[in-house]
Amino acid sequence: MSYFDAASAAPLHPVARQALLASLDEGWADPSRLYREGRRARLLLDAAREAGAEAVGCRPDELVFTPSGTRAVHTGVEGALTGRRRSGRHLIVSAVEHSSVLHSAEVFESAGGTVTRVPVSRTGAVTPEAYRAALRPDTALACLQSANHEVGTVQPVAEVAAVCREAGVPLLVDAAQSVGWGPVEGDWSVLTASAHKWGGPPGVGLLAVRKGVRFALQGPADERESGRAAGFENIPAVVAAVASLRAVRAEATEEAVRLRELTERIRERVPDLVPDVEVVGDPDRRLPGIVTFSCLYVDGETLLHELDRSGFSVSSGSSCTSSTLTPSHVLKAMGVLSEGNVRVSLPPGTPAEEIDRFLSALPGAVAAVREKLGAPSPRTAAGEGVLVVDALGKRCPIPVIELAKVIGEVPVGGTVRVLADDEAARLDIPAWCEMRGQEYVGEEPAEGGRAYLVRRLS
Amino acid sequence: MSYFDAASAAPLHPVARQALLASLDEGWADPSRLYREGRRARLLLDAAREAGAEAVGCRPDELVFTPSGTRAVHTGVEGALTGRRRSGRHLIVSAVEHSSVLHSAEVFESAGGTVTRVPVSRTGAVTPEAYRAALRPDTALACLQSANHEVGTVQPVAEVAAVCREAGVPLLVDAAQSVGWGPVEGDWSVLTASAHKWGGPPGVGLLAVRKGVRFALQGPADERESGRAAGFENIPAVVAAVASLRAVRAEATEEAVRLRELTERIRERVPDLVPDVEVVGDPDRRLPGIVTFSCLYVDGETLLHELDRSGFSVSSGSSCTSSTLTPSHVLKAMGVLSEGNVRVSLPPGTPAEEIDRFLSALPGAVAAVREKLGAPSPRTAAGEGVLVVDALGKRCPIPVIELAKVIGEVPVGGTVRVLADDEAARLDIPAWCEMRGQEYVGEEPAEGGRAYLVRRLS
Repeated sequence: MSYFDAASAAPLHPVARQALLASLDEGWADPSRLYREGRRARLLLDAAREAGAEAVGCRPDELVFTPSGTRAVHTGVEGALTGRRRSGRHLIVSAVEHSSVLHSAEVFESAGGTVTRVPVSRTGAVTPEAYRAALRPDTALACLQSANHEVGTVQPVAEVAAVCREAGVPLLVDAAQSVGWGPVEGDWSVLTASAHKWGGPPGVGLLAVRKGVRFALQGPADERESGRAAGFENIPAVVAAVASLRAVRAEATEEAVRLRELTERIRERVPDLVPDVEVVGDPDRRLPGIVTFSCLYVDGETLLHELDRSGFSVSSGSSCTSSTLTPSHVLKAMGVLSEGNVRVSLPPGTPAEEIDRFLSALPGAVAAVREKLGAPSPRTAAGEGVLVVDALGKRCPIPVIELAKVIGEVPVGGTVRVLADDEAARLDIPAWCEMRGQEYVGEEPAEGGRAYLVRRLS
Repeated sequence: MSYFDAASAAPLHPVARQALLASLDEGWADPSRLYREGRRARLLLDAAREAGAEAVGCRPDELVFTPSGTRAVHTGVEGALTGRRRSGRHLIVSAVEHSSVLHSAEVFESAGGTVTRVPVSRTGAVTPEAYRAALRPDTALACLQSANHEVGTVQPVAEVAAVCREAGVPLLVDAAQSVGWGPVEGDWSVLTASAHKWGGPPGVGLLAVRKGVRFALQGPADERESGRAAGFENIPAVVAAVASLRAVRAEATEEAVRLRELTERIRERVPDLVPDVEVVGDPDRRLPGIVTFSCLYVDGETLLHELDRSGFSVSSGSSCTSSTLTPSHVLKAMGVLSEGNVRVSLPPGTPAEEIDRFLSALPGAVAAVREKLGAPSPRTAAGEGVLVVDALGKRCPIPVIELAKVIGEVPVGGTVRVLADDEAARLDIPAWCEMRGQEYVGEEPAEGGRAYLVRRLS
């Protein structure tokens, strides 16, 4: 098996395993106790905090350990918003944040706050100018990920931090995807991360809050972790998390070069090997190990199964794999194709041969799915004909497949009207038009769903 | 070293260690993913939930895993209060709950809710009648621990649950101290527990919510653990927690008998071996492994250091060991002596010889502390004299020591007026009077603190 989903969770690093085992014996006691076992646990926790702070680039008393990256985000956003509630009730987030940030924003909104969602380019990046434009006198907090978890695009964090600093607004950086590669540059105020993304054990998040940032929590708390993460400290996991962070950091520069070459190989080769593919995300400003592409006329879930059978574990932002039946908010915000989406995220140490094996297996897997779904043979449809395609009740990618089948049957200048009720169609029909050089005219309500209008240009 | 603080945290059970190691390799991936590693993680999580539910006595879909017992309590209380907010905004807790319950109650109170704190007897137990009396038409939730964490007293949970059921009010049971010994009896609605108390790893709490109980959370959530515990699942720790729960349960009946004999030995022997000691908690309805006593004229922190030097790790509810400088709320609610407090809580497997060694070491340790503090020789003071003792600025146990020194110097029927500003004096002076057969007249404001009036009766 080749595990290519490190952006979800990385296998435990050998150093983490070793540190965990050792500290299960040394660090199980309550570090607030005065007896020997408690003092020993306290020493381990203090040492981990010091080493963790050094890796993050903050003071030890600015760093607390939470039970997960998600908890770090929830606490970080709540704490900064509550701490600055007298400054105002406005929050800025990018449209492509991790769901933990977006969920926090929704809760804030439903409690009467206002949220501005900063849009991204087609490569998934925000601009400092967009953050500057979003800032208001009542802005309490801005949030920006260091790099995107679905497409790997690196955000201009230092520049956005400078813009926020100028306005006196703290910036929370969700560094979950990047912190294993290096510290976050720039003048951030709050930083969050998640150990299992860099090969640490599950159960550990990092929350760093710079001195001077107003921070207050409202829920029940206790005296542990400076009142910012209630509950008995998970010292063995914390020790293992920090040990593995230092270990991956020590190899980061070299490994980044190697993984970047491997993902570059995928970026270059996939469009040659598989027809009708869109590689998404920024080709240059991106994380070393992540590459994402979408395949027309493919159902993401079926493709994942096909690849799993061939021995590859990858992830997808397609609607079809999500329980909510909506396509990834990241792909949506970027305005790129979401159907048949595949994210390859390589754990450090991935051998080059596994990439070659993947590139050999991918074309057959995609073709098999397309064959099952009856996708059109590329660029063969021709003739005049039908104007309305009824794809009501059909799930992604069927509406696009039906559109592609008939587009050649209307004359150049003619229009196809696709009736569909699947949410993904709203995203994928315009994306298909862009890929195919056809004109997307727009959408309108129709009985039982929406009508999407496409004009044949060639 | 003899570790006698299992009620804080138990060392990792060998079965937990083994299960943790195995599932670090099998259970690190995201269980919501469709590929092989994800499916394997999901299987482990499902199996752990099923086994955990069986041990708790609930359906698997009623049980979620949280990052700690404290989080389970915070979520359980918030969820039940929010779910029933239309029924009313009244909460009942016992006065001797774990701080996580009391913190939740304080947050509820500061948000406009009303809290009734049910008092306890001198042994630390509530009565079903007191809960019945506390119930109101607007009561949203009642909370009661299965057994007390500081003195081991077992609460009448089944009876209180019946009273609540009759009134249509859900009962949340914090079973942190008892769940390793057996399931909670009675018709509870919400149950919480903490794995590191039974020899599981840190990082795992249990939250069981019976079907039909209205439950709603307000903060940011995700799709994990039925929306009741956000953040990446800690599957290796969950698997280890459940495996060790089954292991300790398998030995529970036999081990309970053995530990009960050992703690009974301490209960009986300590008052003979050490003068001026009060053993607290219920002598019969109590947990097998916990015994707690308080020593007059002793500073708890110094005694803990003394015992630590002799090789014993114990805990204390004395003000002197707490960062907040107030004595344990449990001892306060019971109205028993808090100074020189020692909690012995035995991990399963504690050899009998360690108890004998402890009983040999204790008298010398207490005597050494008393000597340092200049405690009065028991029952030797006599004569007439001084009425006012100025102990302002003196910390526990000095005010009581000064009182004991002069009581013999006033005539029978005469009064000693102790001036003190230490919070513990309010608890310990009446407790001393009860132990010594003197009359506690009352307290009144005095310059710089409070004056405590004691009438000599003998």
